[in-house]
Amino acid sequence: MTLPTQMNALILKNDGFSGSRTGSDIESLEPYLDHGTLPVPKPGPGQVLVKIRMASVNPSDLYFIKGEYGQPRVKGAAAGFEGVGDVVDGQGLYARYLKGKRVAFVGGVGGSGAWADYIVVPASTCVVVKPAMRDEDAAGHVVNPVTAWTMFDIVKKSGTGSFIFTAAFSQLGKLMAGLSRDNGIKMIAVIRKQSQAAHLTALGASDVLVQSDPDFAAKLAELCKSDKPRILLDAVADQSAADIFAAMPARARWIIYGRLGADAPKITEPGQFIFMDKHIEGFWLAKWFREASMIEKFRTVRAVQNRFITGAWKTEVAARVKLADAMTELPGALRLGDGKVMIVP
Amino acid sequence: MTLPTQMNALILKNDGFSGSRTGSDIESLEPYLDHGTLPVPKPGPGQVLVKIRMASVNPSDLYFIKGEYGQPRVKGAAAGFEGVGDVVDGQGLYARYLKGKRVAFVGGVGGSGAWADYIVVPASTCVVVKPAMRDEDAAGHVVNPVTAWTMFDIVKKSGTGSFIFTAAFSQLGKLMAGLSRDNGIKMIAVIRKQSQAAHLTALGASDVLVQSDPDFAAKLAELCKSDKPRILLDAVADQSAADIFAAMPARARWIIYGRLGADAPKITEPGQFIFMDKHIEGFWLAKWFREASMIEKFRTVRAVQNRFITGAWKTEVAARVKLADAMTELPGALRLGDGKVMIVP
Repeated sequence: MTLPTQMNALILKNDGFSGSRTGSDIESLEPYLDHGTLPVPKPGPGQVLVKIRMASVNPSDLYFIKGEYGQPRVKGAAAGFEGVGDVVDGQGLYARYLKGKRVAFVGGVGGSGAWADYIVVPASTCVVVKPAMRDEDAAGHVVNPVTAWTMFDIVKKSGTGSFIFTAAFSQLGKLMAGLSRDNGIKMIAVIRKQSQAAHLTALGASDVLVQSDPDFAAKLAELCKSDKPRILLDAVADQSAADIFAAMPARARWIIYGRLGADAPKITEPGQFIFMDKHIEGFWLAKWFREASMIEKFRTVRAVQNRFITGAWKTEVAARVKLADAMTELPGALRLGDGKVMIVP
Repeated sequence: MTLPTQMNALILKNDGFSGSRTGSDIESLEPYLDHGTLPVPKPGPGQVLVKIRMASVNPSDLYFIKGEYGQPRVKGAAAGFEGVGDVVDGQGLYARYLKGKRVAFVGGVGGSGAWADYIVVPASTCVVVKPAMRDEDAAGHVVNPVTAWTMFDIVKKSGTGSFIFTAAFSQLGKLMAGLSRDNGIKMIAVIRKQSQAAHLTALGASDVLVQSDPDFAAKLAELCKSDKPRILLDAVADQSAADIFAAMPARARWIIYGRLGADAPKITEPGQFIFMDKHIEGFWLAKWFREASMIEKFRTVRAVQNRFITGAWKTEVAARVKLADAMTELPGALRLGDGKVMIVP
């Protein structure tokens, strides 16, 4: 097969970090991206070239293009972390083994991005996708579903009988709800709108608390007493999360994996670290991928794919946007709400 | 030996917690304590009766009598956690073995206190004091020196080459300085007054930073870059401690073991938990005593006693106050500054 030399891509306009902290809302892509052409990247040793079928849009992508994520932007490179596609070229033994296979990947580091026709990624980070899995499920099955699976593993290993999940009406929250029901560990879902409650309960959350409810604190205190949740999985890291943590029982762990909130939370009860053995820590999927063994990664990915193939999990797609139309259509598609937005070359 | 039925004691006037958070400063003992008589307590099964030689005054005692410590007060009971004395009675095998021996103890829970002529404590928590050790060193060798030793053990086990210690001109800070020098792990001591610097350096601190120094932040940043301290041992838990933690490198652990500060620290960079793998946790000696094995406790206490006997550590005594004079003399003695205050029956 002859590869083209040029490809379409959404190209980063800025370098490094912005220093601002405005969250994942995007009015317009103009300040951050250009639609244009780039040379098709060439795989180096140990790398593969993937012809992209579908790329997903995660909150981390939006933070990243705005310069508010934990990794610096590279001006002139394609944006986009995650997707699914076919391996068309590669260097090295494992890369050659992958040739012709459909793989899911997380890239976007070192100059190549998923919001393009092609991406170069390390062969070792590619995940072979089982034939029975839909592109829609495969395109986003590393960042969110693997995060859900690994974070749920932390919950299981802790021995707690329940856990609290903030901003629970996210894709991650929905995935966690199913895992919690299937494993008999109660999920106390904290959400913003009453209208989101029924859907989360149907997916498996045992309790749903609405933050604007005047009885929120009283209901939370009641659940902390009866269910003793020891883990708070939190993507917000604002004062409301700090207040939930303060209300939790002894030995509670606040695990921060995202930063949706803009204010800096206050630790009103530092004595709880001493006398109640509480902890604050973080979770970052990139670190898990760096540190987990090959076997652990393989088992996790297989378990995640099987959940999609059996229908235990299903990716809710809000919109498919063509790469060429993304500059104008993506912001509107992101405002549709429920479900993921996919970018298709 | 015939035991008296009544004894002198400093008796708690209040129950439970005060709800206030005013720190360890004490203008007067009147609101908290009475000097009076109590029945000499009777040891139950597994307990010993100790005739007190000397009791120490720790910051935790002052927080406790004010109702600001992690344990509720018991109105009508004697105050005081720590001291040294002779076992004069007891119930049980180990208790009988201890009879006639000089022991150090941490008590004060369950109605019996060290600021009295006698105290009842569980035999299992008594530490036999080697004959070569002075009463002055023995009276305070459990709370502070064992804390220093166990916290330093956390530093050693972490593999860090340096650590930061706040409010370092405390007894604990001085003990840590010696341990750091003797073990070749750099201690970056954070203090309030320039006048305290020379003494800490002489004791073994490798670097001393004065918080009021206009170059404090720049010097701290420099040391964080050159020495990569991964552990912050902190008894303050205020904004200045949070700022130090934010300046520290990846994988830094903020270990809170005290609550001298009155304000609630803000976590200005929650992303550091995710992307830099930082942690906040606590240390409480009572928990260590509950969870450590007998062998670990025995080894620790022996190592601590040997450091005092060889002169590697020496308790600096600021004042000895008689139990009968404590109501009037203790607040003044505590203001003397450097060194510990002892209460003698």
